[in-house]
Amino acid sequence: MNKIEPKILQGFVELLPDEQIAYNKMYDKIRSVYERFGFLPIDTPVLEYSDVLLAKAGGETEKQIYRFSKGDADISMRFDLTVPLARYVAMHQNDLAFPFKRYHMAKVYRGERPQKGRFREFCQCDIDVIGSESLPLIYDAEIPAVIYNVFRELDIGKFTVRINNRKILGGFFTYIGQSENVTEIMRVIDKLEKIGAEKVGEELIKIGCGDAETEKILSFIGIGGTCDDIIASLRALGVDNELFTEGVDELEEVISHIRAFGVPEEYFTIDLTIARGLDYYTGTVYETKLVDYPSLGSICSGGRYDNLTGYYTDQKLPGIGISIGLTRLFSQLKDAGLIDIAKKSTIDVLVVPMDKTAIPAAIDAAGKFRAAGIPSDVYYLEKGMKPKMKYANRIGVPFVAIIGESEMAENKVALKNMLGDGQVTVSVDEATEIIKKG
Amino acid sequence: MNKIEPKILQGFVELLPDEQIAYNKMYDKIRSVYERFGFLPIDTPVLEYSDVLLAKAGGETEKQIYRFSKGDADISMRFDLTVPLARYVAMHQNDLAFPFKRYHMAKVYRGERPQKGRFREFCQCDIDVIGSESLPLIYDAEIPAVIYNVFRELDIGKFTVRINNRKILGGFFTYIGQSENVTEIMRVIDKLEKIGAEKVGEELIKIGCGDAETEKILSFIGIGGTCDDIIASLRALGVDNELFTEGVDELEEVISHIRAFGVPEEYFTIDLTIARGLDYYTGTVYETKLVDYPSLGSICSGGRYDNLTGYYTDQKLPGIGISIGLTRLFSQLKDAGLIDIAKKSTIDVLVVPMDKTAIPAAIDAAGKFRAAGIPSDVYYLEKGMKPKMKYANRIGVPFVAIIGESEMAENKVALKNMLGDGQVTVSVDEATEIIKKG
Repeated sequence: MNKIEPKILQGFVELLPDEQIAYNKMYDKIRSVYERFGFLPIDTPVLEYSDVLLAKAGGETEKQIYRFSKGDADISMRFDLTVPLARYVAMHQNDLAFPFKRYHMAKVYRGERPQKGRFREFCQCDIDVIGSESLPLIYDAEIPAVIYNVFRELDIGKFTVRINNRKILGGFFTYIGQSENVTEIMRVIDKLEKIGAEKVGEELIKIGCGDAETEKILSFIGIGGTCDDIIASLRALGVDNELFTEGVDELEEVISHIRAFGVPEEYFTIDLTIARGLDYYTGTVYETKLVDYPSLGSICSGGRYDNLTGYYTDQKLPGIGISIGLTRLFSQLKDAGLIDIAKKSTIDVLVVPMDKTAIPAAIDAAGKFRAAGIPSDVYYLEKGMKPKMKYANRIGVPFVAIIGESEMAENKVALKNMLGDGQVTVSVDEATEIIKKG
Repeated sequence: MNKIEPKILQGFVELLPDEQIAYNKMYDKIRSVYERFGFLPIDTPVLEYSDVLLAKAGGETEKQIYRFSKGDADISMRFDLTVPLARYVAMHQNDLAFPFKRYHMAKVYRGERPQKGRFREFCQCDIDVIGSESLPLIYDAEIPAVIYNVFRELDIGKFTVRINNRKILGGFFTYIGQSENVTEIMRVIDKLEKIGAEKVGEELIKIGCGDAETEKILSFIGIGGTCDDIIASLRALGVDNELFTEGVDELEEVISHIRAFGVPEEYFTIDLTIARGLDYYTGTVYETKLVDYPSLGSICSGGRYDNLTGYYTDQKLPGIGISIGLTRLFSQLKDAGLIDIAKKSTIDVLVVPMDKTAIPAAIDAAGKFRAAGIPSDVYYLEKGMKPKMKYANRIGVPFVAIIGESEMAENKVALKNMLGDGQVTVSVDEATEIIKKG
C-alpha cells in the first residue's frame, strides 16, 4: 500500500504527552484563578456565520480568516474570543445576570504568515466583565488583580502589568493639535521600547507631526517614575482637555483600586506608550511583560471598550477584558527553558507484575491505589524485568510497585522509588502512605 | 447603524453558563478517571491536510467533511479523534513509550443533516491503548473497567457495557456459507432491538440469505443469558471455524479479566448483535446503554483494531479504544431531566458592600475567602440592597456576606445562607468555616 506522509499543517502545533501535561497544568491553573474570582465559563462554536463574525472586521484581520462555504452557508472560523462574546451576549442577554463575568479558554484561528512564535491555531484564555449600560471603574482594577494572581500561581518569575488609559493619549494629542493623527501617533509611540526615542521622533516627523509637536510627544512619553509620580507629572502638564483630564482621573482611581486588591507595587506600573492597536478600546488598556524576558513582548493584553455589542443590538453593553495567549506563552517559556517537563506521566505508581500469575494481584493493588486517590497503572506486557523497568523510566513515573510470587504470598508489594534508591516490601496501605509523602 | 442578527449556525450548540458549569463538571470527571488509569493527554490541530485526514475515508464520511482551500493547502476539519491519533502515533512513534495510552477530549466536526440529537460540532472523549506489534487482550477488559468507573462517577443511573467480538460474527456467518455477506448481515442484526426478530428475518432474506441460514442467524442472535451461559451456548453450537473459535476464546478471556477489574456483573453483558459499523474493528467491540433510557442508544462505543496506522507507516500498531460523545450525552441527559443545573455560579460566596465606603472591606474579605480556598466575588455596583440580593439570587450563589457600617466597625460580615434563612454576624474566619460546611 502507498503510504501517506503523516504531517501537520504549517503554523500549527501539537505537543508530546509530557509537554501536554505541563501545558494542561498551566491551563488548569489559569482556569482555577478565573473561577475563584467568579468568572463563569462559556464556550461558543468554532464556526460562525461570516456576516456575524466579520461584522466589524476588515483589512488585515479579514485576510487572515479561514472562510469557506458549505451548502448555503458562508462560514468563518473564529479569530478571537471577543467577537463571539459580543454575539453571545447580544443573543442571550435576557438569560444573563449583569455584570456578566465570563471566562473563555479555547482555540482561535488566524491564517497568518507562519513565523517563529506565531501560530495559526492557538488557545486564548480570556476574561471579560460586561455591564448593562454602565460598569464601574473598579472592574478595570479587578482585571489586573486577577492577572496578578494567575501569573503568581503559574510561577513564571517577575512580571509587570503595564497600564495606560487611551483617553490620556487621545486628549493629549488633540490638545497639541494632532487630533487627526491620534491613531498613527499611537502606532508609532508603541514602538518606543523596540526602536528608541530618536527613531520614534523621526517616525513622528514622517507621519506629519511638526518639530514642536514631536518634542512634546517625546517629552510626554518620557514621563517616568512611580505611578504616583506619573499621575502628578501628567497633572503638572496643565493640559486643557476634558478627555485628557477624564483619562488621568480614571487612571488614578484604577491605580488606587489595584492597591486595594492587594497587588504589590512592583507588579504594576503606568506605561504611557501603551495604546493597543485594536480600535475598540476606549479607556484603560493593559499589557504584561516578564521582567527578565522583555523580548517575549506582552504575554497578556486587554482593555476597556465602551460598547461591545453595537453591531448586534441597541442595548449599550460596556466591558473590560484581558487575554492570555496560552499557546504562544507556553511555546516562549518552553524555548526559554522555563517550563518544567519533569512529570511525564499522569500516574504516580506503576504496578509491575513479575509474570502472568501476578496480574490479578497487580490489578487489585492498582485499584486500591486509585481508591486512595493515587493515579495508577499496571504494566501488562509479558516481558523481562529489564524492559519493564525501562518502560517505567521512559514514562517518568515516580514509584514502581513490583509484585512477584513472594510478594503475593505476603500480600505485599516491592515499592521502588525511581528517583531515590533501594526498595521496600510493604503492604499497599503502607505504600500508599509512602507515595503520598512524595 | 444596521444591526446584524446575532445567531449561530444550524446544528451547532452553545450553553448558558449554568449549563456550561454542569457540562464542565462532567468533562472534568471523565478526564480525572482517564488520568487515574494512566492515560496521557494529547491534543491535535482541528485542521489537517485533507490527504492525511481522508486517507481511508470515503462515501458518507467524506460528504460530511468541512473541507476547503487556503493558499495552496487543501484543508479538512477533523471528523473524529481516531484518524488524528493514527497520524500522531505514526508521526511521533519514536518519542512515545508503548503501550501508548492516550486520552483526547476535544471537538470534532461533521456537516451532517441537522436533526435532534445530532450535532455538527461535538466533543468526543476518547481513550485508546496502542501497542507496538502486539497488545495483550487484558486491555480489552481495562477499557470497559475505565468506562465503568467513569459512568459510576458521573452518577447517571444504571448502565450496561455490551461486549461482543467481531471474529465470532465473521466466523459464524462464514461457517453457514455467508462469507460474502458478512458486513451486510452485521448491518441488519444490529437493528434487532429496534425492529424485532421478525423484521430482521425479512431483511436477511432480502439481502440474499436463504431460509435455513436466516433461521440459523436468528437463533444465533437469540442466544441469551449470563456471560457464562452465552459462552457455553456458543461453544455448544459446534461451529467448525477457526475465526469463530478464536473470537469465543478472546471473549471468554476478556470477560474473566473484566471480573478481575472488579466490575460488578450487572454492569456488563455479552450482546451478539453488536458489530459497530466501522470496518476497522477486528475483534472486541463495545456499546454502552443506560438501563432506564435505552432509547438514548449507545452513549459510549468502541473496539479493537488490528492496525491503526497502516495508511502512514509499515510499523504494525494494533490498538483498542472507546469514545464517549459528550455533547450528545449531555444534551440527552439534559432533555431527560437528569442533569442537575443547581450550581449556577463558580463562587460560593458573594460579598456585598452596603455602599461605596464598604468596598475596601469587601475586597479584603473576598481576598481572605479565596486564600482559604473559597471562590468569591464582590458586587461592586452602587445599587440598593434589593437589586443586590436579586443579583445574588439570579447567579444562584449559596452564601452572601454583607458588609455595612456596623460590620466594618466590628471587622465582621453579615453572612446569609441563601438556601436556608436567617443571617449571622461573624468574622471572615468564622464565615469561612460555615461556608465550608455547606
